Amino acid sequence: MADHTVTVESTLEALLVEKKYSTIRDILSTMNPADIASVFDGLEESRLPLLFRLLPKELAAETFVEMEPDAQELLIRGFSDSELREVLDELYVDDAVDIVEEMPANVVRRILSQADPDMRKDINEILRYPENSAGSIMTTEYVSLRPGMTVEEAILRIRRTGVDKETIYTCYVTKNRTLIGLVSVKDLLLAQDDDETVDKIMETNVISVHTHTDQEEVARMFSKYNFLALPVVDTENRMVGIVTFDDAMDVMEDEATEDMEIMGGMTPSDKTYLRSSTFDLFKHRIPWLMLLMVSATFTGLIITHFESALAAQVALTAFIPMLMDTGGNSGSQSSVTVIRSLSLGEIEFSDLPRVVWKEIRTAVLCGISLAAACFAKIMLVDRLMLGNEDVTCLVALVVCATMALTVLVAKVIGCVLPMLAKKVGFDPAVMASPFITTIVDALSLLIYFGIASVLLLN
Amino acid sequence: MADHTVTVESTLEALLVEKKYSTIRDILSTMNPADIASVFDGLEESRLPLLFRLLPKELAAETFVEMEPDAQELLIRGFSDSELREVLDELYVDDAVDIVEEMPANVVRRILSQADPDMRKDINEILRYPENSAGSIMTTEYVSLRPGMTVEEAILRIRRTGVDKETIYTCYVTKNRTLIGLVSVKDLLLAQDDDETVDKIMETNVISVHTHTDQEEVARMFSKYNFLALPVVDTENRMVGIVTFDDAMDVMEDEATEDMEIMGGMTPSDKTYLRSSTFDLFKHRIPWLMLLMVSATFTGLIITHFESALAAQVALTAFIPMLMDTGGNSGSQSSVTVIRSLSLGEIEFSDLPRVVWKEIRTAVLCGISLAAACFAKIMLVDRLMLGNEDVTCLVALVVCATMALTVLVAKVIGCVLPMLAKKVGFDPAVMASPFITTIVDALSLLIYFGIASVLLLN
Repeated sequence: MADHTVTVESTLEALLVEKKYSTIRDILSTMNPADIASVFDGLEESRLPLLFRLLPKELAAETFVEMEPDAQELLIRGFSDSELREVLDELYVDDAVDIVEEMPANVVRRILSQADPDMRKDINEILRYPENSAGSIMTTEYVSLRPGMTVEEAILRIRRTGVDKETIYTCYVTKNRTLIGLVSVKDLLLAQDDDETVDKIMETNVISVHTHTDQEEVARMFSKYNFLALPVVDTENRMVGIVTFDDAMDVMEDEATEDMEIMGGMTPSDKTYLRSSTFDLFKHRIPWLMLLMVSATFTGLIITHFESALAAQVALTAFIPMLMDTGGNSGSQSSVTVIRSLSLGEIEFSDLPRVVWKEIRTAVLCGISLAAACFAKIMLVDRLMLGNEDVTCLVALVVCATMALTVLVAKVIGCVLPMLAKKVGFDPAVMASPFITTIVDALSLLIYFGIASVLLLN
Repeated sequence: MADHTVTVESTLEALLVEKKYSTIRDILSTMNPADIASVFDGLEESRLPLLFRLLPKELAAETFVEMEPDAQELLIRGFSDSELREVLDELYVDDAVDIVEEMPANVVRRILSQADPDMRKDINEILRYPENSAGSIMTTEYVSLRPGMTVEEAILRIRRTGVDKETIYTCYVTKNRTLIGLVSVKDLLLAQDDDETVDKIMETNVISVHTHTDQEEVARMFSKYNFLALPVVDTENRMVGIVTFDDAMDVMEDEATEDMEIMGGMTPSDKTYLRSSTFDLFKHRIPWLMLLMVSATFTGLIITHFESALAAQVALTAFIPMLMDTGGNSGSQSSVTVIRSLSLGEIEFSDLPRVVWKEIRTAVLCGISLAAACFAKIMLVDRLMLGNEDVTCLVALVVCATMALTVLVAKVIGCVLPMLAKKVGFDPAVMASPFITTIVDALSLLIYFGIASVLLLN
């Protein structure tokens, strides 16, 4: 992929120098818009306007959609009004909206002033919907049919109006703007009788989403039902647009990335890694680091509180990291599993008892095996091999008991916290490793010193 | 969603008791296969065969595909040969393969014996491809056109053969089985002249994948190019099948889940959480816990080695958890970001220098801010508020210096290890938080005691 892109870039650079513009146009015309965009993003900005003008009109618009916001802005600023209008005319409304959302106010004003009235109306309508709602990712360009149409009339209508619809393959049957059914081009083409009316062959139990439905829910419905497109209706069940599978795919990818970022203890960002400045990265990472560092004060306090105990049994200190890490790892295993299941809609709050019970049983299995292994390790490695006299059998016992108990506590917390977060309306992903670790650390120490003071220190 | 499902279940239960079968059939007929399947999965198994037989033939097959493997097996075992054949006849080959892959040998033999010869041949062919390859998720049912056909002939062919193709919307133009172009139904319907031949309107620079291409790469291409379907060719560039967008969506979802599981320190599982037994969970979680616990021995050794130092400066112990956690968190922030960017194809090994340089600059910003905050916190909280005399200004200095240095080391390791893993052919996700934490723990302690022994202990 990338290597291929690189070579094309160098070729273009060379051809530009030699002013072999028709050759460049021929090369670009054989390429896919997404590939052209990534080539352009690799070239130095000054070359963009010239190269872009070499593209055939339609390909130019398709490429424009695929480019990075900063490159798009550069081009728009360079466009004459007529050039801007040409590009806009070729865009689908939802793509136009995506671009508008990324542009500074003055560029937006210029785009809206050049867009034709219908598109301007649609753009403004879509912009009104809350971010991450179905309304905000839908397009208003779909094929609508009347129930009374015959198959032949329907196909004719598609052939007439289809050219600037984002998808023609699912057509929506509406009666004074209310969605009453859908029919696919496949149904129309495979219909036995061309005089059959649409309402005879249409699918009547239509699954639709509301303009305010969360985009994550929309994406889930796509992967559940394998739709090409999903109709979007308003509160009066009037059809206002469609979301197409490609937008759903982008949402799935973005939501997964967002979850991972949050799980990794970062505030999510919509810039790709290489395009985020050092300060962007800093902004997204420092808050959690600060919060977690400060909250680690508790673990410090606990240790200080048991300083005397530690002084009496120096051997205990050496096992603190292992106990804390094992606890943290056990907890994050549970939290990651639960968080992912929640966001895939596989479990919900009502499953809490089942989940907790599952985790408890798993924790017992893990705890016992770890404790056993740990005991063997301590006796063999620390005591025999390294001949550390302080590590008595009793110390090993304390460590292993703590280990088992910590794993249990960690796994329960790891599964409960995300589900509670979801219940009270937070993003469950916040309750992932970094957060769990901090809590489990403190608890594991308390357990450790608790057991120790019973078995060792009196 | 779920609530809705629940109510339907209870209704069905009631109607079953009253033997109101036609009513049940009416209810089910209005539902989407995916919803029927989730209702069925909620009912007790004994009711399945009866309910399933109530479904209209085609809906029955579509529902069967959506059900969980164990339910499918139960049904197949209950089917008569003719019933089994009826279901199989309605299945698409790739769905049939998915089912076959889940079934025990004797059930598989029965399925293959009942499938019609063509399907049996196709199933066996697809089964031969390596797991997670394009070949293993493709279907062999696509519409192929000859270059010489007119638009009218092409549409006619689609209407004749389309009924049992998984998608008719993208048709592939082949010349003695070699893929030479593609044409969409949209192109055909919107073509000005019905006597135009296919090779005149077809798209000739076709993007295709090889039967052995990894499914993750296939999914990436879908989200990049927004295809409905992607043609799969063999080593001789002969067309053997297509992958459709819905399969790509499933792959995207599975791959994201797999990455998260691995990042969470688990071996990935393809069972959903609620369907995995306690032992399944145990099997997938214990290996990492064991490995990480044992590797935590090093941290233990380091502490033991500096025991005397700690005894001399008890205050130092209290800051160990905070230092280790902050290091771990900084590291996992970088690793998560890099791992995700790698699997989205946003960065690759050649970007290593840029990435490292980015992380270093970010680490310096984070490190300095954390160190400053930490110093203030120690002096205010630990020294003034808690009046801990051992916490001298010098101790605070040691802690903060360690903090800054640890963050730097952690972030560099966090970005380098995943990229190296990818380079040598491991899954980068393995190099996530749990693994990084263990390494960073040891290093942070070494840094801590290193600085301490210079500034404090002599």
